[in-house]
Amino acid sequence: MTGSPSRVRVHNFSVSLDGFATGEGQTFEAPFGHAGQRLHEWAFGTRTFRGMFGQPGGGVGVDEAFASSWNRGIGAEIMGRGKFGPHHGPWTDHDWRGWWGDEPPFHTPVFVLTHHPRPPVEMDGGTTFHFVDATPAEALALAREAAGGLDVRIGGGPSTVRDFLTADLVDHLHLVVVPILLGRGVRLWDGQEGVESRFDAEATSSPSGVTHLTLTRRPA
Amino acid sequence: MTGSPSRVRVHNFSVSLDGFATGEGQTFEAPFGHAGQRLHEWAFGTRTFRGMFGQPGGGVGVDEAFASSWNRGIGAEIMGRGKFGPHHGPWTDHDWRGWWGDEPPFHTPVFVLTHHPRPPVEMDGGTTFHFVDATPAEALALAREAAGGLDVRIGGGPSTVRDFLTADLVDHLHLVVVPILLGRGVRLWDGQEGVESRFDAEATSSPSGVTHLTLTRRPA
Repeated sequence: MTGSPSRVRVHNFSVSLDGFATGEGQTFEAPFGHAGQRLHEWAFGTRTFRGMFGQPGGGVGVDEAFASSWNRGIGAEIMGRGKFGPHHGPWTDHDWRGWWGDEPPFHTPVFVLTHHPRPPVEMDGGTTFHFVDATPAEALALAREAAGGLDVRIGGGPSTVRDFLTADLVDHLHLVVVPILLGRGVRLWDGQEGVESRFDAEATSSPSGVTHLTLTRRPA
Repeated sequence: MTGSPSRVRVHNFSVSLDGFATGEGQTFEAPFGHAGQRLHEWAFGTRTFRGMFGQPGGGVGVDEAFASSWNRGIGAEIMGRGKFGPHHGPWTDHDWRGWWGDEPPFHTPVFVLTHHPRPPVEMDGGTTFHFVDATPAEALALAREAAGGLDVRIGGGPSTVRDFLTADLVDHLHLVVVPILLGRGVRLWDGQEGVESRFDAEATSSPSGVTHLTLTRRPA
């Protein structure tokens, strides 16, 4: 820790060329709907993502350089309920503990935004899911408290990232623009006219075909 | 000429990060509506664009490398009426001869798509505007005939590019993704789900902050 204030960061957040961050029709079998794995193929080749799933090897080029920073200095995550699972309304499947198996890759407290709070779920490896009915600012206060001075990651999905952007609570946004046209799904950018004026933008294209775009909050 | 078949090309076509290729509210003073000049600032610094307007100098980096290929090997252009002028419906201002002064930078036949045909307008420097009420395929047949074996450029705006994509008549699409969020205007990508499957994509980021994305038709 450097004494600099805790930042709010988004990492490895893929969007299609037409601005969709997830496809239409999320199900248990298809967490990203009709997008399938197409938004994240760039990531599957990286050492970081392979390591998350216990696989050896992986590229160490520019995709990896971006992918690997997702967990560095992070003390808590906030995610939308759609990232946690495909359910809606009151919880009926209390056995559901996320998509990630017994040891999720977060290793920090994770705050799941839901209108249906329930007791926390403690997982192996340091991840605990907390279920909170809260505004972005309220959830961030909880996550900052839990992060102990480290940064807070906004984990998605698109509606959650958008809500934090709208509330002007994001300091660092790493997007991955994937050259596919989904045509339908959930748009990241609705209602975000002019948001770039608060950020410095930098684009870095990758041999994999994607472009890494970072938006970093301008100093006040 | 190399004997290869005449191709249909789109060049220097800027889109915002949220997929708008022009803003809302086109007028004589604001050809791109509320987008102003923000979609094309990357181009104003290039040697090619400066040269078009009789200005000396300009950058010769990656933006120029892409910008400069717009006119090479082109024998005719097809444009939508909105690119030609801000008018709608039957022509009332017959003195309007486009935004570009007496000597437009095209120097070829230009086919303007309109439901209101009128006699051709011959300009200085080899540009002649033809006004045709035609489908994309019909307009392309006319333009190919006029191009004498050279390539045909689809000059925009977004609805025109989209119509040619939908008709599967585009061979080479050079987009420039500009990291701004317009929020409103005319979207390029409506109805284009899956269009990338016909193309090879290549992304090149520029120090200016934009990303050049080329979609090149895959060999059959």
